[in-house]
Amino acid sequence: MALRFTSEQRLDDGVLEREFTLGEIPGILWTPASTPEPGPAPAPAPAPLILLGQPPLGLRKMYPRLVARARHAAADGFATATIELPGSGDRPRWDAVDQARAELRRTVEAGEPVGAELVDALVLPLVARAVPEWQAALDALLSLPGIGGPVAYSGGVISIGVRLAVVEPRLVAAGLFAGSFVPRAILEEARQVTIPLHVLLQWDDEVNDRQAALDLFDAFGSAEKTLQANMGGHTGVPEFAGDDAARFFRRHLK
Amino acid sequence: MALRFTSEQRLDDGVLEREFTLGEIPGILWTPASTPEPGPAPAPAPAPLILLGQPPLGLRKMYPRLVARARHAAADGFATATIELPGSGDRPRWDAVDQARAELRRTVEAGEPVGAELVDALVLPLVARAVPEWQAALDALLSLPGIGGPVAYSGGVISIGVRLAVVEPRLVAAGLFAGSFVPRAILEEARQVTIPLHVLLQWDDEVNDRQAALDLFDAFGSAEKTLQANMGGHTGVPEFAGDDAARFFRRHLK
Repeated sequence: MALRFTSEQRLDDGVLEREFTLGEIPGILWTPASTPEPGPAPAPAPAPLILLGQPPLGLRKMYPRLVARARHAAADGFATATIELPGSGDRPRWDAVDQARAELRRTVEAGEPVGAELVDALVLPLVARAVPEWQAALDALLSLPGIGGPVAYSGGVISIGVRLAVVEPRLVAAGLFAGSFVPRAILEEARQVTIPLHVLLQWDDEVNDRQAALDLFDAFGSAEKTLQANMGGHTGVPEFAGDDAARFFRRHLK
Repeated sequence: MALRFTSEQRLDDGVLEREFTLGEIPGILWTPASTPEPGPAPAPAPAPLILLGQPPLGLRKMYPRLVARARHAAADGFATATIELPGSGDRPRWDAVDQARAELRRTVEAGEPVGAELVDALVLPLVARAVPEWQAALDALLSLPGIGGPVAYSGGVISIGVRLAVVEPRLVAAGLFAGSFVPRAILEEARQVTIPLHVLLQWDDEVNDRQAALDLFDAFGSAEKTLQANMGGHTGVPEFAGDDAARFFRRHLK
């Protein structure tokens, strides 16, 4: 799929923010101030790339948090990019996933347990469609001047991170957020993951199952894996946890 | 109890290492290179103090790891001190605790589960005797020139750290190692702990019960508590975990 830039702005800290489309998929690329502009001369030291995963809430809604992560990474010399998930934001609605989400809301509001079949319906189709899209984005992004070197995945929808870590050999490390439901099939796939992992868990996350997150962490096959659990609820990740994650990426991308 | 220095040496990085006795208890104090020598002039900026907890294996045996932690802390401007645990090292043998340890070895070698009564016999007498000794050491150390300001506890025998965090108001933070058995009474006490905590857990610790460590972390009453789990067995804490713990102490002691 062809990547086409649709807008460009320089942020106050010098980070270059470019919106793009990859086929029909909207995305955003941030490159650090020191990265050479795209052009005919090859970049002398290509920036490592962190793929910014996000929950399926739409890029516009997630933008403030995404750009904050992008600026943080750019300060370490890393490029970052994200793409809209299928069925989210401005992309066409996806009835099957919308129905599963409506069923999830109904179940949670009724105080009923969220069953394994509902988790599968919520997550597995999303993983199956999103992971090849991330890989296509990776193909396109790594062919740009100034971007290259090792690649990491960071953030939301942990099942997408797990599948990507299994199928994508260019990924050298992943920082995952244990904040969403995990199908049994993904728990099994986790045993095949061998890259270094840094997993954030909000201990009292009101929308996540702590034991499922601990089971997933236990399942990962990686020789280096760190679980960092903090207090503060689903969206209350403390600032120092972001700093610790940044140090993880510096260790593995530099 | 009176603190009396018995030897003094300057390490190659400028850290001053002084052995002392507190009554009959041997101990070691390390102060950073920039701390003024003891003398009549009061120190202008007293160094925060980290109490270095340790397993009951004796100061001589633990010295290499203790001095490494002391040098690391001194580089951040912190004084560190440790004292010999009752019944360990050169201190008089303690039959009751020795018998409990022999029983533990027998139980583990026989592949039997370690029961709650044995855990109580192993840990509770040690906590009851050691905590007042740490507090007496704190009284004496904080009266020395060049040492003062906030105090933290770091390291081994997590139950000692829990009790100290409950009873000692001068403690502002604790970095704990979830690597020893925890009596039920200590699990209950943990709910009264309110200071910031950084808890290290070796995920596949061969001599520790992971679920007990998770239950203890869950029990702590602190609004800021972080659990960091890593791979590598009981003594295999990765170097970056030490760096993360150092950042925790910098956040809370400076």
